[in-house]
Amino acid sequence: MIEELGANVKRASKALSKLSTAVKNDFLRQLAESLVENTDRIIHENAQDLEKATAHGISEIMVDRLRLNEQRIADMATGLRQVADLPDPIGQVLQGFTNLDGLKIVQKRVPLGAVGMIFESRPNVTVDAFSLCFKTGNAVLLRGGSDAIYSNLILVKIIKENLSKAGLTEAAVELLSDTSHAEAEKMMQADQFLDVLIPRGSARLINRVKEKATVPVIETGVGNCTIFVDESADLDMATRIVINAKTQRPSVCNAAESLVVHRKIADEFLPKLQEAINQVHPVEFRADEAALPLLSGAVAATEEDFGTEFLDYILSVKTVDGLDEAIAHINRYSSRHSESIVTRDYFHAQKFQEEIDAAAVYVNASTRFTDGFVFGLGAEIGISTQKLHARGPMGLEALTSTKFLIDGNGQIR
Amino acid sequence: MIEELGANVKRASKALSKLSTAVKNDFLRQLAESLVENTDRIIHENAQDLEKATAHGISEIMVDRLRLNEQRIADMATGLRQVADLPDPIGQVLQGFTNLDGLKIVQKRVPLGAVGMIFESRPNVTVDAFSLCFKTGNAVLLRGGSDAIYSNLILVKIIKENLSKAGLTEAAVELLSDTSHAEAEKMMQADQFLDVLIPRGSARLINRVKEKATVPVIETGVGNCTIFVDESADLDMATRIVINAKTQRPSVCNAAESLVVHRKIADEFLPKLQEAINQVHPVEFRADEAALPLLSGAVAATEEDFGTEFLDYILSVKTVDGLDEAIAHINRYSSRHSESIVTRDYFHAQKFQEEIDAAAVYVNASTRFTDGFVFGLGAEIGISTQKLHARGPMGLEALTSTKFLIDGNGQIR
Repeated sequence: MIEELGANVKRASKALSKLSTAVKNDFLRQLAESLVENTDRIIHENAQDLEKATAHGISEIMVDRLRLNEQRIADMATGLRQVADLPDPIGQVLQGFTNLDGLKIVQKRVPLGAVGMIFESRPNVTVDAFSLCFKTGNAVLLRGGSDAIYSNLILVKIIKENLSKAGLTEAAVELLSDTSHAEAEKMMQADQFLDVLIPRGSARLINRVKEKATVPVIETGVGNCTIFVDESADLDMATRIVINAKTQRPSVCNAAESLVVHRKIADEFLPKLQEAINQVHPVEFRADEAALPLLSGAVAATEEDFGTEFLDYILSVKTVDGLDEAIAHINRYSSRHSESIVTRDYFHAQKFQEEIDAAAVYVNASTRFTDGFVFGLGAEIGISTQKLHARGPMGLEALTSTKFLIDGNGQIR
Repeated sequence: MIEELGANVKRASKALSKLSTAVKNDFLRQLAESLVENTDRIIHENAQDLEKATAHGISEIMVDRLRLNEQRIADMATGLRQVADLPDPIGQVLQGFTNLDGLKIVQKRVPLGAVGMIFESRPNVTVDAFSLCFKTGNAVLLRGGSDAIYSNLILVKIIKENLSKAGLTEAAVELLSDTSHAEAEKMMQADQFLDVLIPRGSARLINRVKEKATVPVIETGVGNCTIFVDESADLDMATRIVINAKTQRPSVCNAAESLVVHRKIADEFLPKLQEAINQVHPVEFRADEAALPLLSGAVAATEEDFGTEFLDYILSVKTVDGLDEAIAHINRYSSRHSESIVTRDYFHAQKFQEEIDAAAVYVNASTRFTDGFVFGLGAEIGISTQKLHARGPMGLEALTSTKFLIDGNGQIR
């Protein structure tokens, strides 16, 4: 299975690397139209995933993540057109010069080759991942969750129909229909076929990939994000920011999971925050000893709570004596995704940004802005929480590598 | 052991990330002087490694790689001064803009944090790796081979003495004195301490690291480099290039290990090459069926020979019917380091550079030029043969990551 599909994408990657920008863009726009035309087929297959999920008693939030309807299919099509509109990074020259020996040395941007994506639940990732890989001249081997298998199969089938119609290699995208753990593990070790592996999903999935993979991995997406409300904070602003970061969309990785509060303002701030946030949505507070009496109905936070990405209306609360303690606490428990300080103090803002070890460090803003579109990348294949290759939102460039091309006329050393 | 040293470098990395460029450069220049002053101490300790190696019957080439003498210590000092003279990449702003919400977004270059290096034999890597990591604000945990342990210990000791004298954290560099495989494996899985792992050495070492590591790895250095002599090649030029790439320094990764020859010129070229190369140094040819009768004393090449980095006066020889076959052969067996075509054909040159999947692809030049200094990076911590993060020679930038800093005035989404 993996041997066949792996060899397919490897072979396809050679052909894709040579496609012109025009051919790639035309295809993505054609595929957008085709998806919309095939709305009924997609909804029909998706219904089987929904039925299975409901039968298994999956929560409505999770069932909703699986659901494809007319609007969501139209959104996928819009996404394809947006990717078509982005500049093509392939072929870009990063630097070039003639060296002392007269060698003409140029560093050029090239595709990664064959990309493996292992993801959970949302079937729109299938189309997103394909479009970003295709635009950058990469072939992609997808391994989605078993819960979305019917949706993923029909989406890949439609992409392949379009590839074939356009005279392009159908192996530009392959989907592992065997969603067993054993097959996924083989994929993680398919060095001979895959140049990179991008897992997207829960902390558990990402840790399993890190452990088992021999293919180079880009870690993405786990966001245990924290907001620190400093002594000098504008408490109205802090309230708005915490409410937004916690409640606007709690299931996403840039939502806040933890609040750190300076002890001197905890008395005033925490009851005020609780009152305001409950008007938007009830939130469960898991508080340390000092914060516990200030939040009605709060439960005592465990060590584990501070390191947990709840993805729910739950917020851990820690009180600190000052900036240094706040920074140490965050660097200890965060997943290095996005952290924010609310402060009026210039030097505190600067120190926080310098010393917090995360992909995105905010001053006086919600963590919810960490996103490829907001950061000007035009698209996003995930948010890297590691320091190698790409950090933070990953756009098209994160799907490329480089190559040195050297032209000589007989130079030896 | 690893718990203690890992925690040390992790802690040190926080302090190092804040050092000014001036402090870092002054320290490197001071260390250069100190190394030279301590020449006798270094040579004395190195002698124990040499004695052990000789007692174990290690080959003279390998013993020579271990040897530190006055000249080599002076060369290490020169290397330190060169690193001090390079621009400091830390703090560089890669991009920045104000987004639609009024957020001021800046992407800044930051250190990786704590770097793990696993290397073999040559003790000068200790000083090289430290200097590049220190210049980029990283702490480094070193694990050298047991054969160089006395040399590595004294070099790290001298670095620590200088750090202490300069009032800097001694934990900027740590050396695993336990050189067991078990301890090395723990290091490969020390995610809580290390941000990246750079193995430097044999294919076996690098494969073991890839298999065992959970810390993100940058693969380096295995160079099974090939030269393709095309039908239209200037055969005198081709001879000079092959002789240089094979014999000038056969033990390094950018030396050629394999020769691919167009069948139409094999009759003329191979005997001519053999005669010329033997005047420089006798070379063992491992040839395919067509080349075998053209090279006196050649042995039949096995499948394995084409995939082997000999690091010796051995050259595998393959004949092909044309460019496509040459490209397919090289892409199948190469280690994606450096490959070269010798040709007069413009379109062949272009196609070779496009389709060969390697870090450096040459036209009419020796592969021996793949090197951080030649490519304008000023220094080199290794040559990456993977596509993530860095490809080809890695200079200071390869030891950095980035961070998004976002300044707001209360923005919510």
